[in-house]
Amino acid sequence: MSELERVGELARRRGFFFPANGAYGGVAGFYTYGPQGAALKRNIEDAWRDRYVTQEGHMEVSAPDVMPEPVFEASGHLEGFDDMIIECPACETSHRADHLVEDATDIEDAEALPLEEVEALFEAHDLECPTCGESLAGVPVEDFNLMFATDIGPGSAQPGYLRPETAQGIFVEFPRLKEYARGQLPFGVAQVGNAYRNEISPRRQLLRVREFTQAELEHFIDPERDEPDLSRVADVELPLYSAENQHAEDGGIEYVTVKEAVEEGIVGSDWIAYYLGISLDWYERIGVDMDRFRFRQHLAGERAHYAADCWDAESEIGGDWIEITGFAYRSDYDLSKHGEYSGDDFTVFRAYDEPKTVERASVDPDMSTLGPEYGGKAADIAEALQTLAETDREAFEGDTVTVEVDGEEIEVATAVANFSVEEVTESGEHITPHVVEPSFGIGRILYTVVAHAYRTDEVDGEARDYLSFPAEVAPTTVGVFPLMGKDGLDDRAHEIAATLRSAGFDVAYDESGNIGRRYRRQDEIGTPYCVTVDYESLEDDTVTVRERDSTEQARVAIDELPATLTALRMGSKSLSDL
Amino acid sequence: MSELERVGELARRRGFFFPANGAYGGVAGFYTYGPQGAALKRNIEDAWRDRYVTQEGHMEVSAPDVMPEPVFEASGHLEGFDDMIIECPACETSHRADHLVEDATDIEDAEALPLEEVEALFEAHDLECPTCGESLAGVPVEDFNLMFATDIGPGSAQPGYLRPETAQGIFVEFPRLKEYARGQLPFGVAQVGNAYRNEISPRRQLLRVREFTQAELEHFIDPERDEPDLSRVADVELPLYSAENQHAEDGGIEYVTVKEAVEEGIVGSDWIAYYLGISLDWYERIGVDMDRFRFRQHLAGERAHYAADCWDAESEIGGDWIEITGFAYRSDYDLSKHGEYSGDDFTVFRAYDEPKTVERASVDPDMSTLGPEYGGKAADIAEALQTLAETDREAFEGDTVTVEVDGEEIEVATAVANFSVEEVTESGEHITPHVVEPSFGIGRILYTVVAHAYRTDEVDGEARDYLSFPAEVAPTTVGVFPLMGKDGLDDRAHEIAATLRSAGFDVAYDESGNIGRRYRRQDEIGTPYCVTVDYESLEDDTVTVRERDSTEQARVAIDELPATLTALRMGSKSLSDL
Repeated sequence: MSELERVGELARRRGFFFPANGAYGGVAGFYTYGPQGAALKRNIEDAWRDRYVTQEGHMEVSAPDVMPEPVFEASGHLEGFDDMIIECPACETSHRADHLVEDATDIEDAEALPLEEVEALFEAHDLECPTCGESLAGVPVEDFNLMFATDIGPGSAQPGYLRPETAQGIFVEFPRLKEYARGQLPFGVAQVGNAYRNEISPRRQLLRVREFTQAELEHFIDPERDEPDLSRVADVELPLYSAENQHAEDGGIEYVTVKEAVEEGIVGSDWIAYYLGISLDWYERIGVDMDRFRFRQHLAGERAHYAADCWDAESEIGGDWIEITGFAYRSDYDLSKHGEYSGDDFTVFRAYDEPKTVERASVDPDMSTLGPEYGGKAADIAEALQTLAETDREAFEGDTVTVEVDGEEIEVATAVANFSVEEVTESGEHITPHVVEPSFGIGRILYTVVAHAYRTDEVDGEARDYLSFPAEVAPTTVGVFPLMGKDGLDDRAHEIAATLRSAGFDVAYDESGNIGRRYRRQDEIGTPYCVTVDYESLEDDTVTVRERDSTEQARVAIDELPATLTALRMGSKSLSDL
Repeated sequence: MSELERVGELARRRGFFFPANGAYGGVAGFYTYGPQGAALKRNIEDAWRDRYVTQEGHMEVSAPDVMPEPVFEASGHLEGFDDMIIECPACETSHRADHLVEDATDIEDAEALPLEEVEALFEAHDLECPTCGESLAGVPVEDFNLMFATDIGPGSAQPGYLRPETAQGIFVEFPRLKEYARGQLPFGVAQVGNAYRNEISPRRQLLRVREFTQAELEHFIDPERDEPDLSRVADVELPLYSAENQHAEDGGIEYVTVKEAVEEGIVGSDWIAYYLGISLDWYERIGVDMDRFRFRQHLAGERAHYAADCWDAESEIGGDWIEITGFAYRSDYDLSKHGEYSGDDFTVFRAYDEPKTVERASVDPDMSTLGPEYGGKAADIAEALQTLAETDREAFEGDTVTVEVDGEEIEVATAVANFSVEEVTESGEHITPHVVEPSFGIGRILYTVVAHAYRTDEVDGEARDYLSFPAEVAPTTVGVFPLMGKDGLDDRAHEIAATLRSAGFDVAYDESGNIGRRYRRQDEIGTPYCVTVDYESLEDDTVTVRERDSTEQARVAIDELPATLTALRMGSKSLSDL
């Protein structure tokens, strides 16, 4: 069984995730998180929120999934958020054209090629439909927009789309969000929520789906004044797979401290370096295997034109490297576009250190002269004169000044223009903030955490499968078992379960099957601790606490259980201390 | 200012919620939760999860928002999830036809009327378009389906819909979910997630929107065997507005314990009574004003035909009663429908207390006789004989037996039928579970909590507005201020903020403006505690802790702050204890 098959099987059987709508045959690309998966997902989101929102002092918002068309005209998604599609004329299955080309040739980034070139490659290599074997030579390759479209409202409905990324819900509200930040840069706004992409070929379980959860942070900064506090992460060792090493024949992952990465220019942006630094610790905290993890720099062709430097966090699953987070320095692209398209104010005011005195040139044309002479054109001429004054003062030095209006050169007496230069004091200027964006794919991270937690060993001569989740993210914190479902053992165990639930623990109560089998059930969902109530418990008010990974056991007083389990979970105690 | 206007203004100004996509003029019915609102919403959801999932030992799942068409054929939403629409021929504005009729007449539930009757009412009352004043008499009233439609996949795409309620994502996965419950009833499955309804006329801010968050619990029970533990809530006093009192001329809210409500039959279902009981405490815990709260029973006309008893939790806002939760006993309707439409197994096996021996009658017709005589009809005759054996054994007592096939009476020799009765042992039977559903509208609850928390008083001779949130749900737990942003006070305050953040508190750091103004800012977002670092702090390592509602203050040692604030938040200490 491949690693993907093994994870998929365990995920279905133990309630982590499974294809949705199975009773109706399912629809590709949609997964439901079962009881374990929903809890694991929430715990990962909470750990993210703790690190990227609470600890950093940022804001979090929650914007709608359905957004109106003008947002995506501005963001560029309406025009350019496409994948290349080819539909088999025989079986009518649609495929990602670039993926078929990459699978059959040495080409690594077919997405970057023009459609005609991709069509030519289908011809040249006589590529076939992977579903039915029909030749796809001569079949047109087209752009397919990945946004789910819908109609908002009845009657003359407005077109709307399910957001393809949570980020737009933040960018579009910048004019209001900056008020909450009292106009002061830098500030960060996060969102954890769903995004939707109508993938042509969903595949590999949670790794390419049509509906998924993102955790995105948009950190708005003044590019000239704001600096991250690199001292906090200077010594963190990053596993970097730089663009240079990707091009080199023997290049691989290099371990470099944040400090070195910045000083040697391996990571181009201090802000990106800062986020790589804090993120490395975070991945380890939630259970990503650091031996199966790297930061890979985007190659020149992968980056959007406006992005100065981009790195992906990648985890290894089943021999493939999977993008789980993108770190992008997005410059002022997003806010500028929304400012331009909406006409609203997407800038912040940057005060000068000291007010500046600047000269400002302007005109005050004598309309009583221009009007009679030029009629309807007079206003355009006045406007052209003002523009000229702002850009070329010398034009007003002679007796006449020439402006162009509707392609016609018009000469006006300089006296009529009433040109003047005055000194004004300015306290600052309006700038469009730059954006640093760490963008996390929660589903892929969850998938990584499950795959990397998977362990097998032998206990009492029997093979055992277990998930070695960190206690912080484990879906269930503690299993509570009565040795037998009778003699009052069950009542006592129920009481303990209720007490632990009141203390905020996620508790699984189980009285079915022998104790060994119940331990294995919890092992398979990664429950770090199990509590067993036995006949001794009824006499001395103690229970057995058993730890998942070591399978070690210790006796603990029942009334100390909540505190003991909290200490174990926080790592401030270990089982051998008990 | 009305209560709605006041809440809306505060919500926008202080970052609770505001109409989304404002830069593009907005789209009715979509709201973004700002930093305070997103945190408040999350805290309410966590409190819900604690009460209805963790404390009750239920499961939680997370299913996709986009679901394929067959789900909604089965659920009935495709056919019947409509509102009545009328579109003004002059200004093209769409309106809820039933709402216009209700506004203009004494009719209270126009939705229940046939379309033609509603059209006749427009004629009879000569109703006008509320937007432009044009007469709507003679304009057709139509059904408008409230689901947002989209296409899943490219090419021959499948129709899909944004789920109009989270419940369907649970029902449709019942065949798998019952495995996680190991086939044992009762068990409950919860989901907190988004639902979408393409409302004709969104209005009143969060109270009627097109995208909203639900927290739904589907409790699957064996109607004959499972009973709720009413002893846990027997003495809870419920403010009930029964159907009977709604019909009575002087009927109002009656305060009745859960025990009485059940014994007197005011609440028809023990399960509904149980949930009303635990919910009352929960609403109070999150800050709903118990003087502006009631449980209202559905009138006969409001209930779905399959629902045995339904109650709404309602809160009073601006003089209107708002439904914030629905409690419904849904019988086996949902699971039966999905079983019927999907062909999958939506039942559970109910073991008999003891295996039962039952007699089973069957036939084994002699086809070598029937075949030659009846040709193609022989198989149908055999089938008819088997059906007759199962339903009427006495028919086989004579020499011949008569069955009807395709309207023709056919007489067969009893010997040819080979009738026999044998004894078989059955260990149980398959039943379709019933569903008890508490369904919470998180947005409306949040709106209620903000509206009910709003207070004004006078502090030091100045009017003050504040939000008296319970500490558990307050978006920010503690504000940290240096008296001045200098002399090391700011460094010390930053350190304290970081320590509190590490301890998991939501902290607001603020050094701008005078202390009084900073207190007011936190008062307006409902922050229960503020910590001020002053010059004394630098000498004796203490700070001032100030409580929001009382505005009382106390000195606390800095290293005891996390423990003290935790104790204050949990209610185990009050400021006067310090």
